[in-house]
Formats: sequence, C-alpha cells, structure tokens
Amino acid sequence: MDQSIVIVGDWGGSRLRLWLRQGKSVIHRRDGPGVTALTQSPEQTFLDLVGDWREARPEQAILCGMVGSRMGWTEAPYVPCPAATADVAARTVRLEADGLPVRIVPGLSCVNPLGGPDVMRGEETQVFGALSLDAALRSGRRLLALPGTHNKWAVVEDGRIVTFLTAPIGEAFALLKAQSTLGAGGGSMAEGSAAGFAQGLARIAEHGAQRLPHLLFETRARQLLEAMSPADAMGFLSGLLIGADVAAARDWFGPLPAVTVIGDGPLATLYAQAVNAVGAAASVVDGEAAVLAGLSMITRLQDATT
Amino acid sequence: MDQSIVIVGDWGGSRLRLWLRQGKSVIHRRDGPGVTALTQSPEQTFLDLVGDWREARPEQAILCGMVGSRMGWTEAPYVPCPAATADVAARTVRLEADGLPVRIVPGLSCVNPLGGPDVMRGEETQVFGALSLDAALRSGRRLLALPGTHNKWAVVEDGRIVTFLTAPIGEAFALLKAQSTLGAGGGSMAEGSAAGFAQGLARIAEHGAQRLPHLLFETRARQLLEAMSPADAMGFLSGLLIGADVAAARDWFGPLPAVTVIGDGPLATLYAQAVNAVGAAASVVDGEAAVLAGLSMITRLQDATT
Repeated sequence: MDQSIVIVGDWGGSRLRLWLRQGKSVIHRRDGPGVTALTQSPEQTFLDLVGDWREARPEQAILCGMVGSRMGWTEAPYVPCPAATADVAARTVRLEADGLPVRIVPGLSCVNPLGGPDVMRGEETQVFGALSLDAALRSGRRLLALPGTHNKWAVVEDGRIVTFLTAPIGEAFALLKAQSTLGAGGGSMAEGSAAGFAQGLARIAEHGAQRLPHLLFETRARQLLEAMSPADAMGFLSGLLIGADVAAARDWFGPLPAVTVIGDGPLATLYAQAVNAVGAAASVVDGEAAVLAGLSMITRLQDATT
Repeated sequence: MDQSIVIVGDWGGSRLRLWLRQGKSVIHRRDGPGVTALTQSPEQTFLDLVGDWREARPEQAILCGMVGSRMGWTEAPYVPCPAATADVAARTVRLEADGLPVRIVPGLSCVNPLGGPDVMRGEETQVFGALSLDAALRSGRRLLALPGTHNKWAVVEDGRIVTFLTAPIGEAFALLKAQSTLGAGGGSMAEGSAAGFAQGLARIAEHGAQRLPHLLFETRARQLLEAMSPADAMGFLSGLLIGADVAAARDWFGPLPAVTVIGDGPLATLYAQAVNAVGAAASVVDGEAAVLAGLSMITRLQDATT
C-alpha cells in the first residue's frame, strides 16, 4: 500500500487549505489566505505555511483551485469538457518551490447547458473525488451541485464531466443581505431561520423561478408590514435564491434524478432540502472528503502516466 | 388662474429635490440630501434648503417620498390600494416648520400581483402625475413602470392604482456591478454598452426569465473566455436583469398593452427598449414632470377638501 508523503491543497479565492498526507491518512492540516488576499508571493505564502512539514520529506505538493488562475501562482489553462479525471491529471502544470515539486491542477471550461461559456477551478477536483468515493456515480447520467459563493451544477456522464453551469447564488445572497434594502445585516447564507427558508422555497414553488425578481422585495415588505423577523427574512431570501436555482436546474436538466450535493455544513443541507422540495432525492458528500479524494486520484493517475 | 406660491418636493432615500412654484411655473429648484444621509434633523435640513424662498411668502410646502417613512420626518401611514389621487390627498399628514405649513404625502400598500405584501413611497405621486398629464391613461387597465433603485410596476384601472409590484433591479445591478466577481467597477445602470444590453435581452428571450440565475455568470465567463469588454459585460448584465423583470411582468400582467415608463434619462430608455423587445409598445413620461404634476394634483384636491 502506498505510504508516500505528499502535501495536497485546495487554494481558492478566499482561503487555502493545506494537508500533509501519508498514504490515505491526513497527518496535519493548515489554513492560509486565498489568492485574492495575499500579502506576499504565492510561492512564499506556500513555503511559509508548509514550514516544518518539509522535515517529513514530502515527495511533492499538488494544489487545485484559483491558484491556477491568472491571479494565482501560475496559469494552468482550462481543460475543455468533456473531461475525466485522467484528462485533468495529464494537464497539471509543474513548478518547483525551494526544491519541492509542485503541481497545479487545471480548471475546466465548457459550453454550459444554456449554450453559454462557463468555467470552474477547484470544483472539478471535488467532483472527481465524489466519483472515486462512490462507484454508483461513475455510471450513467448524474447531476451534482457544489454550492458556495458560486454554485456549480455539474453533469457527469459515465465518469466524465460533460458540462456544468455556474449560478452566483451565494454571492448574490451575501450582497443582498449585507448591503441592500432587503437585508438585515451581514453574515453567511446559513444564518436564516428554517421557517423563513421553507417559506421562500414555497413562494418559488407557487410562482416559478421566473418570478424571482418579483419575489425578492417581499423580503423587505414582509419585515415592514408583517413584522417578519430578520432571521426569518434572511431565511426567506436564501429560500427564494436557492429555490430558484434548483427549479431552474430542473428545467434544463429534465426530471431530476437523485442529486449529489458536495459541500460542508448548513449550506449543503439547505440545497439538499431545496432538491427534496421539488420531489427529487438528494445525498450530501462532505466537501473536504471530496477534495482530498480528488487530489489523491489526480496524483495517482498523474504518477501512472509520468 | 391659480398663481399661488408653494414649495413642492420629492424627498427620497438618496436625494431631496425641492421646487418653488408659482401656479404651474417652476421659479427655482434646489437639491439636498436624501433621508438616509441627513446630518441634522429633517426639519432643519428642509428649512436650511428653503432659505430665502421664504421671502416669496409660500403658502405651504408639500413633500412626497421616503420623508413620510419611519426614517423620515414623520410617518405618514400607507394608504391601502386601490387608491386614487383623492385618497392620497385626503391622507396627507400636516406639520409646521417655523410657521410654514408642511404636508407629507403618504405612500401606498397593497397585495401585489403575486399575492405578497408590497409598499411604495413617492412613486404613487409620479403615477398620479402621469395620469393627470395624459387623459388616456385614466381609463381602462394600464401598466406603468417606474425604474430606479427599485423598479415599481403599477397597475392602474380607471384612474386608481389597484396593485403594484417592486423589483429591486437597480439595486441588484449596482451591487453585482460594483462588488461581485461579475462586475467591472462601480457606476450607474446606464453605463453598459448598447450591444451588450441587446445581447443580455436576447439571452433572456431565448431561455426565459426563469434562467436568470443561470445566465448571470455568463457576464464573467464571456469576459474570461471571449474577451468581452467591461462596457459590453455591464450592458449584458443590465440586459439580463431588465429583460427578466419585463418578461416576468408580462407573465403576471398578461399580454402587455402599451407600457408607460416613468423616469429620467438612459434607464427609462433601457426599459422602453426591453418592453419593445417583448413585442409591446412603450412610451416614456419624464420623471420630474410626473412628480411635479402629481404634487400639483394632490395639492389641488387636498385644498378642495379642506
């Protein structure tokens, strides 16, 4: 069994998560700044965070996410869809940092289900990880959701990502919550009440996703006229946005099969609830488990082809 | 002919516009801060701006907008729909500022076309003004749009506002433009290019308003992958948002008749263009002319009932 020591990382726009692994075990974990919040070069940021892990003599480091964008460490050109794990593994970009080999995982580009251009960086690794964790996902046509700042809907056919679509739901929620007249103060998507969320989902179910722009202001009007609490109002707002996202996905994907939601904590739960509300089954895969599994698969396939 | 001297004002959240009138003529105009940006009391702000206009011995002042909200000068309770000009005129709230009689026009509340609660303050005066300027609007069922931070769709039947609906389109656009990953720097709704705007309208026409959440990210992807210019991208974003607003209005109003757009400058023109794009006629009424006409009507009706 492979017991080699490697550093793996998910380096997104807003945070860096770095793990020291031996075989399938995680020995240590460290967090650092996202690529949009660096105070020194990506290489120096990385080396400082790695620090004494070098004493364990890691063979290499492999990083996915925005670290491979123009604003990151080096640009790893998008791999066009359809793409399997091996396609991404074959296109990693190689660097060296103070003698340590570093590989950057490329993102994907596609023509999305609405015929528009689309891109992802980091989520492809989570999808490939989910596929490696669950053999059932590797056959047939599957729909996965990766909620976050930008929710990504990924369509997988026989183990390849054939297309995907981005919905900036988390970002819209955060802006509307913190800074609009609809809002009730800053915070994360998950802070709304369950009752408010269910009410938002119900309003979308009643009127359809096309009325989203015309339902949003109810968030304020219900606070003014019906003494809706801020927690209920923020739950209502996230119910409208997530409900519209899920309803629209059903619209282009066709009858929803079981949807696999990849993510952490409350936001993944809210998406699963919204999927259930349109009559489909949802299962949740932990986001960290998915990215670790994906980085392992990419490392293994890459080493096999070297 | 009435040659009395009065002060009229539209005092919204973000600005105060004050006019000194004699009969139907505007003698002077002054601008001040909105009720969300006051550095002293509303009364003192008002008196400072009025200043030497007192020498003309105005009989009274009449103000509409957010000045009548909880955060304004005094709360003028919402008048429930359906409401005609006379209903609003009968419910103005009377104050006095340094001996000058001041009247605050109340806003309206309603159950909107989607069955939700809704409110407006200031737009009712513009709608009543448009009705007084154009007799044709006073008969039958009419749809008016009042684009701005919040677009208001007002349904008028035989001269009464029977219901209305708020869509926070301008606010969403401003936040997404200035602060999201979709954006290309701050500015007003109108700064996008005409070509980008037409492309955004076309994407909504192609896929329907229900796909708005799934079309938004194209604003970024087209900049990344297709070298779309920032001006085109911002036009595209406003085309998506305004296109979805208009498409959804057509959805609940039924086949759109001629839509009357009340507003100033480029934003009113964009709405008229989006209305035309769904096959309906649009006419534009100048926003300032509408509010002045509305305040005149309310003053006249109020004095008639005093």
